[in-house]
Amino acid sequence: MAELITIDDPDDPRLSDYTGLTDVELRRRREPAEGLFIAEGEKVIRRAKQAGYEMRSMLLSAKWVDVMRDVIDEVPAPVYAVQPDLAERVTGYHVHRGALASMQRKPLPDATELLGTARRVAVMESVNDHTNIGAIFRSAAALGMDAVLLSPDCADPLYRRSVKVSMGAVFSVPYARLDTWPRGLEAVREAGFKLLALTPADRATSIDEAAPHRLDRVALMLGAEGEGLSTQALRAADEWVRIPMAHGVDSLNVGAAAAVAFYAVTSGRPQP
Amino acid sequence: MAELITIDDPDDPRLSDYTGLTDVELRRRREPAEGLFIAEGEKVIRRAKQAGYEMRSMLLSAKWVDVMRDVIDEVPAPVYAVQPDLAERVTGYHVHRGALASMQRKPLPDATELLGTARRVAVMESVNDHTNIGAIFRSAAALGMDAVLLSPDCADPLYRRSVKVSMGAVFSVPYARLDTWPRGLEAVREAGFKLLALTPADRATSIDEAAPHRLDRVALMLGAEGEGLSTQALRAADEWVRIPMAHGVDSLNVGAAAAVAFYAVTSGRPQP
Repeated sequence: MAELITIDDPDDPRLSDYTGLTDVELRRRREPAEGLFIAEGEKVIRRAKQAGYEMRSMLLSAKWVDVMRDVIDEVPAPVYAVQPDLAERVTGYHVHRGALASMQRKPLPDATELLGTARRVAVMESVNDHTNIGAIFRSAAALGMDAVLLSPDCADPLYRRSVKVSMGAVFSVPYARLDTWPRGLEAVREAGFKLLALTPADRATSIDEAAPHRLDRVALMLGAEGEGLSTQALRAADEWVRIPMAHGVDSLNVGAAAAVAFYAVTSGRPQP
Repeated sequence: MAELITIDDPDDPRLSDYTGLTDVELRRRREPAEGLFIAEGEKVIRRAKQAGYEMRSMLLSAKWVDVMRDVIDEVPAPVYAVQPDLAERVTGYHVHRGALASMQRKPLPDATELLGTARRVAVMESVNDHTNIGAIFRSAAALGMDAVLLSPDCADPLYRRSVKVSMGAVFSVPYARLDTWPRGLEAVREAGFKLLALTPADRATSIDEAAPHRLDRVALMLGAEGEGLSTQALRAADEWVRIPMAHGVDSLNVGAAAAVAFYAVTSGRPQP
């Protein structure tokens, strides 16, 4: 059972996991270095716990202590009860959802480990917007993608905003980071995957004609909003596929494009 | 050719179309009542003009006068050149994109008029988030939906944020508002459309099995984020369809769900 500790001093060192949460640059450096990430809101905190992440501590305003009582009773981590205005001074923002947890990261699996069992893999290149990363993971989970691989420069799926937008899907879809790019894609191909690059290019095959759901193993490559996949990533692919677009429209946003492409590679399979 | 007028006084009545843009409640009342909407940023302004909307005026910071020179030369509406800080005082926010236009609304078509020529129609119930409305229109345009019908309580597609998120797709996909709900759906059915309600309900047919792309005329009904379609809307449908979801996931966000569903009802058709 957790210890419930009331804290009145915003400079109390026990709150250091929660300081400056709105400073993206700071948190981007600190969180991986210190091996932590922040889960925000009841639902997301429960999902992180269910997914086996160890809790370092929780920061709760008074009314959330009751709501989270069962979690408090179960975990050994300290729980800091604070006034909402103190939470705001520490974190830098008004914590609408009233509950924050600092969770311990787990070592990421190797890409090769994930590739051994997956059939449908999303490969993201340079997606460094935390909202987009979160939205893509949410769709990947819902639409049955088995794993996600990230190029070295993709944003952190465990950053607070990504976690929140994904509704915790970053805990349920296993992911790994490729060490080299695009060279790391070789391992994907060697594991038996066909590399499909999603691009609006005219010479790409329409994704409904490419019928990727009939392939045994598919790795679907996606680029960032606006940029799309780099030339080197497109070169490394086995085939280019495009979502058929109505006349005169530039593109879908990356979240919508990912959802459609995930549906196209997973639908028509027998559901588990 | 437009008149270029430098304005230094934030209370100048000629700027009244642009006052209090961050006050959503105010603008939601004023804009339809005064028959205007606001287009923000070069691309969106150009698209509004191309789509045949009449310009009432433009509000530009100095450096945008050159960028918009061709538009200024073409349209008769007055152009107000202002300092960025004056733009901020008038509108209530820092206008990053440097260019605003006040455009004249056009009368909306009747639903029956749109139903005469469309084959693929999206029907939205109670979608009152401006970002979601914009995202859905963007996907509707890209994925070849022919028209959108709105329940009486849907948000305004011409609200500034909707227009921006849609990247101007609200100008290119024709839409109409149903006067009564769900009674107005009768007219859709009478026009020969099969009404498909998108829902995560277990008893719904998987959308890939329902194969809506093979139907002659499809009206795809979507509810709001979180809520989904109301019971009365579900009752009014001809068939329930669901996006097949992987085990344990609640739902897609409404933008992703709409994109997948639009793809499912439009793909496999010969492209125009």
